Amino acid sequence: MGSPAADEDLPQVLIIRNPPAFTIDGEEQFTSPKFRFLKAFESTLPPHDFLAARARSVRAMLASGGAVVDARVLQFLPELRLIVTTTAGLNQLDLPECRRRGIRIANAGDVYSADVADCAVGLLIDVLRKISASNRYVKQGFWASKGDYPLGSKLRGKRIGIVGLGRIGYQVAKRLEAFGCSIAYNSRKAKPGVSYPFYQTVQELAAKTLGKDGVIVNIARGGVIDEKEMVRCLMEGEIAGAGLDVFENEPDAPKELMELDNVVMSPHCAVFTRESLLDVARLVVGNLEAFFSNEPLLSEYEDD
Amino acid sequence: MGSPAADEDLPQVLIIRNPPAFTIDGEEQFTSPKFRFLKAFESTLPPHDFLAARARSVRAMLASGGAVVDARVLQFLPELRLIVTTTAGLNQLDLPECRRRGIRIANAGDVYSADVADCAVGLLIDVLRKISASNRYVKQGFWASKGDYPLGSKLRGKRIGIVGLGRIGYQVAKRLEAFGCSIAYNSRKAKPGVSYPFYQTVQELAAKTLGKDGVIVNIARGGVIDEKEMVRCLMEGEIAGAGLDVFENEPDAPKELMELDNVVMSPHCAVFTRESLLDVARLVVGNLEAFFSNEPLLSEYEDD
Repeated sequence: MGSPAADEDLPQVLIIRNPPAFTIDGEEQFTSPKFRFLKAFESTLPPHDFLAARARSVRAMLASGGAVVDARVLQFLPELRLIVTTTAGLNQLDLPECRRRGIRIANAGDVYSADVADCAVGLLIDVLRKISASNRYVKQGFWASKGDYPLGSKLRGKRIGIVGLGRIGYQVAKRLEAFGCSIAYNSRKAKPGVSYPFYQTVQELAAKTLGKDGVIVNIARGGVIDEKEMVRCLMEGEIAGAGLDVFENEPDAPKELMELDNVVMSPHCAVFTRESLLDVARLVVGNLEAFFSNEPLLSEYEDD
Repeated sequence: MGSPAADEDLPQVLIIRNPPAFTIDGEEQFTSPKFRFLKAFESTLPPHDFLAARARSVRAMLASGGAVVDARVLQFLPELRLIVTTTAGLNQLDLPECRRRGIRIANAGDVYSADVADCAVGLLIDVLRKISASNRYVKQGFWASKGDYPLGSKLRGKRIGIVGLGRIGYQVAKRLEAFGCSIAYNSRKAKPGVSYPFYQTVQELAAKTLGKDGVIVNIARGGVIDEKEMVRCLMEGEIAGAGLDVFENEPDAPKELMELDNVVMSPHCAVFTRESLLDVARLVVGNLEAFFSNEPLLSEYEDD
């Protein structure tokens, strides 16, 4: 880091809301000698007032998943030319408005895919092989007093249905192939060069792969599943279990699931490993430094 | 099943102790129209008395993992020509004495390898990604009240050291390759046709792959690890965690580990899926039927 005097001359990068990776073990991870942050979240001003007063000349901003950047925000940022996100998805951005204003976007690219795929597979193994539940059984001392734990289910030979075969879905498929599972998928259209059976609709895919002995794993977003209906199916045994990293009303998760040993829940942490947060911090800093040096961005998002 | 009268004429298969898979959901899994069982465990006689009185003409027996078949047992069974095990390993048998007596052996072959490998990988993901611990956190309602759970560790890029690259070790390696881990192994000698780096000793392997951030997974036998020393290392943070399916004094597990969130324990159930128990029952029955029909055994064990 330069001296305070030199810092004053550095270009500013706006942050509306602190991204999760900003600090790890008390250390700021996004530091650079080439820019400094303008932190809206540290101001006592209401966000829009802060933007109007302080951010008119800002040319770059960092947007985490929770920080909505809509047309209303963008109108306060006439000089903005770059948004760098700590996310792979861009749901928090008004993409048409960004395009209209000529704002480039650099996202987290593929940084999280492996970790999310690992989490999906981990949740599936956990549910099928009852790892969390039997761990609790052993730790409560029941092994010695009550004997063997109920049988788990085998992974080999299981039919896996993947809804959306993007980067993450494909990595889940590759992992589960190594376990001897057979893969099928649904997406808007069949992927070229992919040999897994393709189903036009989620319903057709589910008819082939789910059912009374089936397990649902969700590492995407809570909203992609009708949570009430899933809870009902789990309570009534219409499906055999679930591994869930995401929920409709986080950080709340459905109370009915808390007592179910065949449901394994993690607190929306599929992307959160120390390594992936360090990786995304490096990528964000690299994108911002490249921008201010007029060099190609490391992970520029291109509209289809 | 034949009529009781016909049953009387069937050849007998001795069982000293009930194997775990013998009954699933209340149904006997090892039934056959070609033989009947002579169940020592149902008699009130002491085992050796039962053998002396009832088993002299027995030509085949079924041996589970817990049923020791040593020279003392074999001397009561002069007509024995076949032992079928429900296990892959044969630690319960006095192999030289079997060989001397010309007793053939059929074991469980490769039936369990995939499930054990799955369990090893499941335990590893669980420890690294804190699945059991974060599941408990969510189910206790702490996500809403206390916020995010501590970061997990990434699988991709991790160095994996496998002690013993047999069928199970190899299947563990294949799975973890799909997660982007790098594999090394130790065994008595380097395996031909295997490209993973080979280390002469467990110590050299551990020096490359374990350490303060390392995790131990044991799905072999409790005795292969110095459990006291492992507990000490875990308590003092010399290793980062453990996933354990086996223990020195089962069904007891070390009390000190019960409170540790970075230790995941399952009750020696790596082989126990419904599917693998059904598979082993089919294999056992197939071996016994083949023997009594003078056909080749399905999974005859050949001494090196």
